[in-house]
Amino acid sequence: DQTSHLICNGGKTLTMDTLNPQVKAVEYAVRGPIVIKAGEIEKYLEEGGTKPFSEVIKANIGDAHAMGQQPITFLRQVVALCTFPELMDSPSFPEDAKWRARRILQGCGGHSLGSYSASPGVECIRKDIAAYIEQRDEGVPSDWENIYLTTGASDGIMTILRLLVSGKDSSRTGVMIPIPQYPLYSAAISEMDAVQVNYYLDEDNCWALDINELYRAYQAAKLHCQPKVICIINPGNPTGQVQSKKCIEEVLHFAYEENLFVMSDEVYQDNVYTPDCQFHSFKKVLYEMGPEYFNSVELASFHSTSKGYTGECGFRGGYMEVINMDPEVKAQLVKLLSVRLCPPLAGQAAMDVIVNPPQPDEHSYKQFHQEKSSVLGALADKAKLTEQILNAVPGIKCNPVQGAMYAFPRIFIPPKAVEEAKALGMQPDMFYCLRLLEETGICVVPGSGFGQKDGTYHFRMTILPSIEKLKVLLGKVRDFHISFLKEYSALE
Amino acid sequence: DQTSHLICNGGKTLTMDTLNPQVKAVEYAVRGPIVIKAGEIEKYLEEGGTKPFSEVIKANIGDAHAMGQQPITFLRQVVALCTFPELMDSPSFPEDAKWRARRILQGCGGHSLGSYSASPGVECIRKDIAAYIEQRDEGVPSDWENIYLTTGASDGIMTILRLLVSGKDSSRTGVMIPIPQYPLYSAAISEMDAVQVNYYLDEDNCWALDINELYRAYQAAKLHCQPKVICIINPGNPTGQVQSKKCIEEVLHFAYEENLFVMSDEVYQDNVYTPDCQFHSFKKVLYEMGPEYFNSVELASFHSTSKGYTGECGFRGGYMEVINMDPEVKAQLVKLLSVRLCPPLAGQAAMDVIVNPPQPDEHSYKQFHQEKSSVLGALADKAKLTEQILNAVPGIKCNPVQGAMYAFPRIFIPPKAVEEAKALGMQPDMFYCLRLLEETGICVVPGSGFGQKDGTYHFRMTILPSIEKLKVLLGKVRDFHISFLKEYSALE
Repeated sequence: DQTSHLICNGGKTLTMDTLNPQVKAVEYAVRGPIVIKAGEIEKYLEEGGTKPFSEVIKANIGDAHAMGQQPITFLRQVVALCTFPELMDSPSFPEDAKWRARRILQGCGGHSLGSYSASPGVECIRKDIAAYIEQRDEGVPSDWENIYLTTGASDGIMTILRLLVSGKDSSRTGVMIPIPQYPLYSAAISEMDAVQVNYYLDEDNCWALDINELYRAYQAAKLHCQPKVICIINPGNPTGQVQSKKCIEEVLHFAYEENLFVMSDEVYQDNVYTPDCQFHSFKKVLYEMGPEYFNSVELASFHSTSKGYTGECGFRGGYMEVINMDPEVKAQLVKLLSVRLCPPLAGQAAMDVIVNPPQPDEHSYKQFHQEKSSVLGALADKAKLTEQILNAVPGIKCNPVQGAMYAFPRIFIPPKAVEEAKALGMQPDMFYCLRLLEETGICVVPGSGFGQKDGTYHFRMTILPSIEKLKVLLGKVRDFHISFLKEYSALE
Repeated sequence: DQTSHLICNGGKTLTMDTLNPQVKAVEYAVRGPIVIKAGEIEKYLEEGGTKPFSEVIKANIGDAHAMGQQPITFLRQVVALCTFPELMDSPSFPEDAKWRARRILQGCGGHSLGSYSASPGVECIRKDIAAYIEQRDEGVPSDWENIYLTTGASDGIMTILRLLVSGKDSSRTGVMIPIPQYPLYSAAISEMDAVQVNYYLDEDNCWALDINELYRAYQAAKLHCQPKVICIINPGNPTGQVQSKKCIEEVLHFAYEENLFVMSDEVYQDNVYTPDCQFHSFKKVLYEMGPEYFNSVELASFHSTSKGYTGECGFRGGYMEVINMDPEVKAQLVKLLSVRLCPPLAGQAAMDVIVNPPQPDEHSYKQFHQEKSSVLGALADKAKLTEQILNAVPGIKCNPVQGAMYAFPRIFIPPKAVEEAKALGMQPDMFYCLRLLEETGICVVPGSGFGQKDGTYHFRMTILPSIEKLKVLLGKVRDFHISFLKEYSALE
């Protein structure tokens, strides 16, 4: 009978005890407990519940369209034409969009977005990406056979790590990541049971990467694992810094010397706001260091449709360029990709528009550039505004948001609040962010989800809300922080 | 200098020696060596080279649109409207498509397909899927919170296996799979370093699943691992059988008794051709077995936009329904999904159309059903034709193609050919398929890529080419097979 069945085999097959422990170890703060809580509050408000605020503002994730950013018209026209080719006859679609859509469809089996592409992506899109990279890097050669389309950048990053982290020896494979980091990295490392090797960015120096810290982290790690790869996020997430060329040279020299595989996460390459900063691709810098570097350092760099000025997260488009990979390993990479069949075709088409935008002599040029400048101009304004307002709050210190889409301010949390959090078994910045959410409806992510120096506290917020909403949000953060400080200082 | 650098660190970081051995172990025949060869021949022909044929026919993969199948108009209309909402004003789009697109966009952040959805998918799409399942299963309840959108079915299957296969104990976790199988399963098992537990389908009985064989495989496996999960593909891939209700009951009873997690791959649920066969979902059968089964057996079933009558592979859409999963484990599943952010939104929208097609009182109903019946009718004709022509060839025996999209005929390979293959270090059916490709341009996948009883040989071919092309293809296979038999029998 049922009872004896349940008793004799202990109920469920898959329980917290039998679950893959590496899954259990995964943490992903950007969609973690605070975001689940925010969703609950949203539902509660929808169902007529009352709170001291009327809406939840989700500043936890770089989801531009959800924050009201409008899609780039030309991109959507091309993807719609690819999706429903009968629109090729419609006079309301411009010829330059039709031309691109036709070209993409010619690269698809049966001229349909519904067929699988080759696992590394549609050939003409790979070629467009290579041409784009050559132009971006002022002539540094790019081979289209080194380009692999991906399902967002995360997919590419996971795939390269999967090659590098060695099955049964996983717990000996060191993966160097910046702290603070984007938690995809720590999640992937947990899932693969590799060793996370932290190098700390220098908060006092605008979150710059300090080469001495890299050496320190590497030497310390070598005592208990074999570091095989260094990950860099530039522009930084969550930290927003843009790396200098000199600093990139130092990292590449270090990787060359220590024989590390380099993964450069460059998804924010179009998001640089401060006039004195400039995006330098790792590949271009490597090229300029000379052939002994350019022909030997193994480098994978990642891009995405989700960020930049397009913010097309839902399309799950992206690519990676991989150079100096052993040809036999490349064949293994293609085999691994083929098990997942191919990245989504609509995302591939969206990626194509980004690397092959309207040219000055084309009909859509003007509108495209207006829309692009408008998005990037607004982001630059919001980056500046965020820094200014936050730095005017006592107990908050925010580095300049040079690039990317986030501010990562340091927050002072009074000792009494730290104690209270600890008594609740909670990170102090989680305690802070939960209070902020409960009292203001603002959802940001605690710094502990990204990593930070012991005893320091931060949160990550996106700069994506409209300027009006962002001002309201920052005002609420200020008021909350001041009253939080008062509350816990009064207790002392 | 460079030389000493290369000497002291041995050149590359990532080599065949340092590559994750589990990646090396992965095999994926559907896009394996024979398909790479086919691509080379295609390029050679394009560049003006000559062969005894003018085109390569790729019957290796279930890629309907690449084989000329036309998309379902309504599905593409809805996705195009979601992609470019300005089309809502266009009179050339029907209201029922606009209504669906509006509803989907209302479920998206910022009403844009470019925002991330919740990791399990857009809420209203999950609800539509649950409603569809209830209708399909004649009232068996489906809870939308048990529905998770996926990036194709492969993604869902990998995710559930990732939960079940336990990190360091992976080499103790047994995963039962049918032989022949779809090689995603063996590839996932290799990648996760789990134990593949084969149960053999009964070729002499139309590839039926024999419950005694299941017990045999399970008992044998228990001697060296702990079988935790049983995978079933129904309708079968590559074998095309449709499981009887009785057989499904037996499998579920077995899973109940032995406390196995059940994964039912039901992506071909709309592809049933033989009038005496019917698709029974595992969930419905479980329900009919009574509450002691329905409330305890852990079951994940998978569906996809890639198969059925839509064939939308490039959209990478799909879903899984997971029942009786421990609530804490479910939270872990959501966490794991959240690291990849979300499945592509266009694929989610495509999935929504499949589960929420035009109703009889709607404008698009007639055209939708014409298109659907036309695709499914042609597939049924081609299934029959393939079986008939193949069975008329001496030395080929093909079970009825009851469902799915493939024939998996058994081929007699003369001993002399087997010897020659072995001398070349090749599987005999690989040798056969390579000869077929070289001489006719037809690309099919050797049975060894799916698994088969020792000493038997097969190939998998899709029934997707147009009826005219399929006749040519089957004629060529016949002629090739006869001359192959002659060649190697003459040698004896």
